Amino acid sequence: MLNTQILPLPPGKVIGILGGGQLGRMLSLAASQLGLRTHIYCPDDNAPAFDVASQHTIADYDDMDALTAFADQVDVVTYEFENIPYETAQHIASHVPIYPDPDVLRITQDRLHEKKFLNTLKIKTTDFADITSLKTLQAGYEAAGPDVILKTRRLGYDGKGQVRVKSLEEAVQAWEAVSKVDAIFEKYVPFTCEISVIVARDIEGKIACYDPGRNIHTNHILDETHVPCGLPQNTLHDAVLMASHIVRELDYIGVMGVEFFVTEAEGKFSLSVNEMAPRVHNSGHWTMDGCLTCQFEQHIRAIAGWPLGDTQRRSNVVMKNLIGQDIEGWREASLKPGVALHHYGKKEVRQGRKMGHINTVSPRSA
Amino acid sequence: MLNTQILPLPPGKVIGILGGGQLGRMLSLAASQLGLRTHIYCPDDNAPAFDVASQHTIADYDDMDALTAFADQVDVVTYEFENIPYETAQHIASHVPIYPDPDVLRITQDRLHEKKFLNTLKIKTTDFADITSLKTLQAGYEAAGPDVILKTRRLGYDGKGQVRVKSLEEAVQAWEAVSKVDAIFEKYVPFTCEISVIVARDIEGKIACYDPGRNIHTNHILDETHVPCGLPQNTLHDAVLMASHIVRELDYIGVMGVEFFVTEAEGKFSLSVNEMAPRVHNSGHWTMDGCLTCQFEQHIRAIAGWPLGDTQRRSNVVMKNLIGQDIEGWREASLKPGVALHHYGKKEVRQGRKMGHINTVSPRSA
Repeated sequence: MLNTQILPLPPGKVIGILGGGQLGRMLSLAASQLGLRTHIYCPDDNAPAFDVASQHTIADYDDMDALTAFADQVDVVTYEFENIPYETAQHIASHVPIYPDPDVLRITQDRLHEKKFLNTLKIKTTDFADITSLKTLQAGYEAAGPDVILKTRRLGYDGKGQVRVKSLEEAVQAWEAVSKVDAIFEKYVPFTCEISVIVARDIEGKIACYDPGRNIHTNHILDETHVPCGLPQNTLHDAVLMASHIVRELDYIGVMGVEFFVTEAEGKFSLSVNEMAPRVHNSGHWTMDGCLTCQFEQHIRAIAGWPLGDTQRRSNVVMKNLIGQDIEGWREASLKPGVALHHYGKKEVRQGRKMGHINTVSPRSA
Repeated sequence: MLNTQILPLPPGKVIGILGGGQLGRMLSLAASQLGLRTHIYCPDDNAPAFDVASQHTIADYDDMDALTAFADQVDVVTYEFENIPYETAQHIASHVPIYPDPDVLRITQDRLHEKKFLNTLKIKTTDFADITSLKTLQAGYEAAGPDVILKTRRLGYDGKGQVRVKSLEEAVQAWEAVSKVDAIFEKYVPFTCEISVIVARDIEGKIACYDPGRNIHTNHILDETHVPCGLPQNTLHDAVLMASHIVRELDYIGVMGVEFFVTEAEGKFSLSVNEMAPRVHNSGHWTMDGCLTCQFEQHIRAIAGWPLGDTQRRSNVVMKNLIGQDIEGWREASLKPGVALHHYGKKEVRQGRKMGHINTVSPRSA
């Protein structure tokens, strides 16, 4: 734990960030605005976050000596992605405070644990079944089938490690294709849309949410987020209350992204949690131009023991990811009024790689 | 000149910045958003801009070898302050494009040249007289007196190198106190208020202005800037047109801050230019939370050959500087909704030193 006697962590202190991608980069920029310095830890010697940090360490996540040296040079640590090894986070925690608490990773790194945790809070998830053997696969398919998504329990993101199947035979093949690792079936949900809530909780337990955004995916990768999301106020309140309930129950510190499936029946909308990400989230990038305090500053505030900032939405925003070759859109985006370009400075363009995003703002309509 | 065949300078390229203070720091943050990298050149080994730049050089401004090495590593150069030696800028220009053009410095580094230049454009300045000897001092005082401000022609800022005098005897003493360097008398203007226009001009000659802000000084240092500034629309138009005229005539590339004295007579307002600064300007800091494209991004866009960004004001803003011990206000500022804190991360608090600023936003009223 941070020494609460000396909180908030004053400007000049150093935030350690595990991960040097675009999220680490934008966290670093936000920390700078508050006068805090950053030290990025990343195995990639070309990490985009290095360009805007006062220090960096290039080392693997299982290099315990490098982790110790890193921990000794910073005042608090956070991470930009949830697939950081639990042991890495625990090792850091034995030297310096790390937020969110590594125990959160044990839940969010495993789809089964995550769903069970949510269900204990009486928060709806999709129906699911646990697969550890051919026998449980058969039983699970019987319970959740016929239209299900097989997902590996660990290390999935952007649609990786998941496949939709419509027969037991397909299901067996799919499981064999992922080397029979622990997995789950999720009942396929014909959802109306997906929304997400970016929620933050500070060291004193105060909670703040941004307006929910509606997410549009293409090829399993987030393509656009729209705020306002166009759903009735009571549905949005439900989403915000569930997200708040999650972070409160976890005694969570920092920003979390919570994704919801929205289903409609007889004009009524209902929500189930699809996923929770213990970090700043792509669906919160709209806050950079939509709010006075963006999600990156909010996360830095939370983990540095500062009070949370202002989450009020200043305008309508459409966030569009620039993925792979889309990044060439920077030229056109730079010409348009009402458009803010965020280019991550990545040197190599690769298919499916998040290269930047643009926020298009317009007067607030709701 | 930048090779206009390859413009705009694409993300990944490197902006060299002479000067590593808060303006260099905020320029560097803005460049990062566009995917551009920065290399800061500064004699101070503790410069706040180093924390957010991908490279830095610690060397004096007259170290021609260091300047050459720096120029060879960057794609375009700019500067954060107007008192950079002309020879330094010229040396850079012989290796790599530098904007604004160093010739602008020959005008803005000398109050006499600046006023004469403005007058050739038929833009009003305060009445002035040139002082190079006791004889010209006496003649000048006779012409501009009795209530005048003696200002050194070069190297003045934040009220340094200037003193108000009300008799010839005081004037002589004041001139002796500045070691009889070349100076001017300015007729004292009992102005109603001071406003400033942040104007930008891109490589193709397009011009964009931000809404004029009203400046409030304390002890000759900018204390607050208010937008909207509360003057009639036609007065604001006049200010914007004059600022645009100045940058057009100079074939200027980049952001410039133009300060105006506003005087009122019989309900009519008139303007005279107090000063022009060939760089991003403290009175434009409100744009960071008031516009989609802030003055720092605007300057980077201009010098990198990009089109200018959107200058539309999104809200009312009051910018307040945190000077010296004021910086302790970061704690209180961090608690308030509608307030954005910008802390420059300077390690040492000194009286009169600009340590940070806060922008307070509220719904747009005009």
